[in-house]
Amino acid sequence: MLDHVVETTMAVSGEHPIKMSNASVPVVHEVEIIDELGRRKPTFIPGERSLTIYLDKREVVTLMTLGSAPEALVLGYLRNQRLVESPEDIESIQVDWETDSAAVKTRRSTVDIEAITSKRVVTTGCGQGTMFGGLMEDMAQIRLPEGPKLHQEAIVDLLEQIRAHETIYKKAGSVHACAVFERDGEKVRLLHLIEDVGRHNAVDSISGLMWLAKRRGEDLIFFTTGRLTSEMVIKGAQMGIPFLLTRSGVTQMGLELARKTHLTLLSRCSGKHFEIYNAPERVVFQSS
Amino acid sequence: MLDHVVETTMAVSGEHPIKMSNASVPVVHEVEIIDELGRRKPTFIPGERSLTIYLDKREVVTLMTLGSAPEALVLGYLRNQRLVESPEDIESIQVDWETDSAAVKTRRSTVDIEAITSKRVVTTGCGQGTMFGGLMEDMAQIRLPEGPKLHQEAIVDLLEQIRAHETIYKKAGSVHACAVFERDGEKVRLLHLIEDVGRHNAVDSISGLMWLAKRRGEDLIFFTTGRLTSEMVIKGAQMGIPFLLTRSGVTQMGLELARKTHLTLLSRCSGKHFEIYNAPERVVFQSS
Repeated sequence: MLDHVVETTMAVSGEHPIKMSNASVPVVHEVEIIDELGRRKPTFIPGERSLTIYLDKREVVTLMTLGSAPEALVLGYLRNQRLVESPEDIESIQVDWETDSAAVKTRRSTVDIEAITSKRVVTTGCGQGTMFGGLMEDMAQIRLPEGPKLHQEAIVDLLEQIRAHETIYKKAGSVHACAVFERDGEKVRLLHLIEDVGRHNAVDSISGLMWLAKRRGEDLIFFTTGRLTSEMVIKGAQMGIPFLLTRSGVTQMGLELARKTHLTLLSRCSGKHFEIYNAPERVVFQSS
Repeated sequence: MLDHVVETTMAVSGEHPIKMSNASVPVVHEVEIIDELGRRKPTFIPGERSLTIYLDKREVVTLMTLGSAPEALVLGYLRNQRLVESPEDIESIQVDWETDSAAVKTRRSTVDIEAITSKRVVTTGCGQGTMFGGLMEDMAQIRLPEGPKLHQEAIVDLLEQIRAHETIYKKAGSVHACAVFERDGEKVRLLHLIEDVGRHNAVDSISGLMWLAKRRGEDLIFFTTGRLTSEMVIKGAQMGIPFLLTRSGVTQMGLELARKTHLTLLSRCSGKHFEIYNAPERVVFQSS
């Protein structure tokens, strides 16, 4: 058990480093099951634990998470819920699994938390469904750039890298993965792969890491094992990433939002197979 | 398009019928995709729309839903979030897809909404993740009865009925199903199957229907295509249902809650296969 691993590290973000714990606990539990023939067998299931976020000592939310990247999750949550304007506004993030809490201290409070948290939307995503504020309206202002192209070889390369990756899913199932890649000619390079019991935790964690690294979304490609519902597309567009790929499917509002923001959306991605649902002009086919 | 179907029906619930709309809109959209060989093909995706719940003119939440059973969803949401004590406290539920809203009128307000909504937990489930109040603490008081047994034949029968059912999933994918059955000797009888883009919407809708029908949980069996995370097990236990079956997997906290409440939990159910994770003594094997 890795229950109480709390280290303090420094994450360099511009001139103002964030003082951050490193309390990762990706725990897989072995349990005994009985199958349909009455046989007792060992199997593995993923952990699920609660993490309560306190922003300047104010309780914001309790997330249910695997716990593999809690500081990144907190960062991404604050980013995507617009509770902090910039990573530079954050002085420290301290995750403590003894109390299942994350204490965030800001340098300056720039956001009216009261006003933002008053509007609540529960979305269709796995996991972290709540979104504050009028995010849907903001979508109207996002238009992703025409420029970036993605080669068919790069798509196949990306899917092969995902397939080959050592994952908690392979051992225990019941988690979603999100990954972010950068383009490297006709190949792609994996930057991060994060798994969580909630797919929204996984995308928020990626979002947090990209925010911290000040990565421009237009250089990136985003992959998820989960469905592209409205909220997932909103998060992708907010990160400014023009390519969203899923192993799974798409909902009507997810597609509508991809159309509005000019986001290239690929679904049912597996092996060499994919289905382009929007903005196919960014995909360069092998034969062309 | 079935966008504006709003009928008024009476749902009989004890002495006090609820005046209820019947605004079901399970919409599947046809869209054109391009596959990896550059071929254009038609395919289907499920709808996803927002539904804002107003409780006595007070805005409570906005859910993202398929829209197949909106009144049941509203009922189940109010039940599971403990915003109403009994269906008899509800005078009317009117869903209007022109304004994407559900207006709920109570006969008497029995609950301190302000106090309940102040504590927010975002859970790992697909869909409706937010839970108000200290539900986890309440779990300690639930202990499901020893009595009910489930025959192996009934499990296989149940899975066959699910497989044979006409579903939106078969046509469009990207939705989760929840179903509730009653035991009928060594067989089972399907009472309701509800699909939604959020699996928590699906379970809440079932919960709403069972609440309205005043069905005792101990006579029922609950099936879901989604994972049994903490929140799903909490909802099952709150309905008093001793059997939770999933096609998918289980998280550690889901299992822990099943142990605490003495709930029989079956995972990886498909065809004749199942894995019992807790309380196997309620399952009667064919050979025994």
